Amino acid sequence: MEELILLGHGSGGGLSHELIENVFAASFANPLLLPLEDASLFPSPGERLAFTTDSYVVQPLFFPGGDIGRLAICGTVNDLSMRGAAPLYLSASFIIEEGLPVADLKRVVFSMAEAAAEAGVQIVCGDTKVVERGAADRLFITTSGIGVVRDGVDVSAQNARAGDAVILSGTIGDHGITILSQREGMQFRSGLESDAAPLNGLVAAMLAESTGVRAMRDPTRGGLATTLNEIAGSSHAGIEIEEGKIPVSEGVEWACEMLGLDPLYLANEGKLVAIVPAEDADRIVKAMRSTRYGANAVLIGRVTDEHPGRVILRTRFGIKRIIDVLASDQFPRIC
Amino acid sequence: MEELILLGHGSGGGLSHELIENVFAASFANPLLLPLEDASLFPSPGERLAFTTDSYVVQPLFFPGGDIGRLAICGTVNDLSMRGAAPLYLSASFIIEEGLPVADLKRVVFSMAEAAAEAGVQIVCGDTKVVERGAADRLFITTSGIGVVRDGVDVSAQNARAGDAVILSGTIGDHGITILSQREGMQFRSGLESDAAPLNGLVAAMLAESTGVRAMRDPTRGGLATTLNEIAGSSHAGIEIEEGKIPVSEGVEWACEMLGLDPLYLANEGKLVAIVPAEDADRIVKAMRSTRYGANAVLIGRVTDEHPGRVILRTRFGIKRIIDVLASDQFPRIC
Repeated sequence: MEELILLGHGSGGGLSHELIENVFAASFANPLLLPLEDASLFPSPGERLAFTTDSYVVQPLFFPGGDIGRLAICGTVNDLSMRGAAPLYLSASFIIEEGLPVADLKRVVFSMAEAAAEAGVQIVCGDTKVVERGAADRLFITTSGIGVVRDGVDVSAQNARAGDAVILSGTIGDHGITILSQREGMQFRSGLESDAAPLNGLVAAMLAESTGVRAMRDPTRGGLATTLNEIAGSSHAGIEIEEGKIPVSEGVEWACEMLGLDPLYLANEGKLVAIVPAEDADRIVKAMRSTRYGANAVLIGRVTDEHPGRVILRTRFGIKRIIDVLASDQFPRIC
Repeated sequence: MEELILLGHGSGGGLSHELIENVFAASFANPLLLPLEDASLFPSPGERLAFTTDSYVVQPLFFPGGDIGRLAICGTVNDLSMRGAAPLYLSASFIIEEGLPVADLKRVVFSMAEAAAEAGVQIVCGDTKVVERGAADRLFITTSGIGVVRDGVDVSAQNARAGDAVILSGTIGDHGITILSQREGMQFRSGLESDAAPLNGLVAAMLAESTGVRAMRDPTRGGLATTLNEIAGSSHAGIEIEEGKIPVSEGVEWACEMLGLDPLYLANEGKLVAIVPAEDADRIVKAMRSTRYGANAVLIGRVTDEHPGRVILRTRFGIKRIIDVLASDQFPRIC
């Protein structure tokens, strides 16, 4: 097989077939994908379905803790999970710049297969387009996903109510600061690493403990601050969080101080924030802590009927300040 | 609102929200999309589902007969239809180059909304990423789709059997030659136009006439020749078609002669080829002709148990020749 991706790999002809067989089918092999039809067919997995899509344009393609492929699987698995859905079937579509080493593509595709196996999802359909040198930056991936929502589950950013507890599943800022430091060529002693991870196992543990979970979001672009604002806005409720309770790793804290960044606005790819009834909060946190990706879960605040639509941070010094959505455009291509 | 797309429109912050509200929500408004959750939720539409995805990188973005937006809707609607599925829900994900005029994006999004309305599908979830100038060529769109397959329908490229009839829904080459002529700045007197169209109505008419339809494909990249080879390969059957029966518009024929191209290998975006039991063929063709996009439907050949996996063309001069899949890479970014 060729060593570099050629325009012909996207032509729909012989080279396309070769690429599909040697790279995609080889890693994603499953009975739903393999007939390589125009669409994949399967029995409906349940009565209520969830459907989502995201494009991934992260730069660089490979970084500590992950790569664009792991991100593309985890991001879509997580978007489904944030509605309380169990993710099942994913699509994967590739836009490739002519000249990308086939070895890089294989590495990404293998990483996708690994992440899909970890999450227990199948990649059942896909597409490949190749554009000329300079018409794209190496590789973009778009994944979509279908999940099933079981009876009694109703998770929506509109459902937060005054009195609810706010839970965060772990440290924030790891993904964002890792990408930034890679891109700027900065070396931090502390070994920063992206948190890219599939959260469906964590969510399953939460819903097994209580189907009362009201809202969940994964704080990706815009970070925790923006995500909480979205929930506050959708639910017409106020949210108050305590800075001192939000876990931030030593490495991220140090890097943020160096760079003058606020971890509240940095992207995460393996964390979630959940709004749950106060009376279920301790049990849910305990269930989260029993899972790999929820080991550092913690209560960080509460929902209030004051200042609807606003998020208030109580700082370590006891001062309250409004935190708004991300306003700046300083970090493109973080995911 | 800004006149050009900025990096901040993809940040997940304030500008992203503005873009979503003013451009996407404004055109795609529907109750499933509008809560703007991480995933869209809906009742399962039936017992058997179809799922597909495609990325669109066509250059130029706007061309006679359509644009990248119409293509992105029709392509995914058609991929679902080719499995006999009725398309229902679509996702749309945008990768935008910084500096794209917002007016161009609005025009594309409006065209998507129009095509979705024509096809009777809803765009229920989406995503937007913005990359720096030079990191993408203006705009790429990825759509995925979910459809439902009704009882008794079993359409697959594996199902062609010796004796079946081969039906083509209309003229070939219109899309491919239109894009090429636009790109090369060629002017043809005859007014070439892309055939981009949603084929779900046509397919519904066919299946209403007979659920015996065995295989369908829309001959996009690689053209009719490649598509027939895929069916022949998947079904381990031979296919014979007659050149004289394949409709080619005067303009396409003339342009192909000028450029030395074979319409059999040119992309189509609003045509299908169907393999049907011989005894149903006339009725199905008649049903197709009663629809807008099947008005020129015609029998072009048959499936045979000779030369399995191969496609044979009988030329106007009565000579038989093997036609293979597209081998070359001469036409990138046709869709």
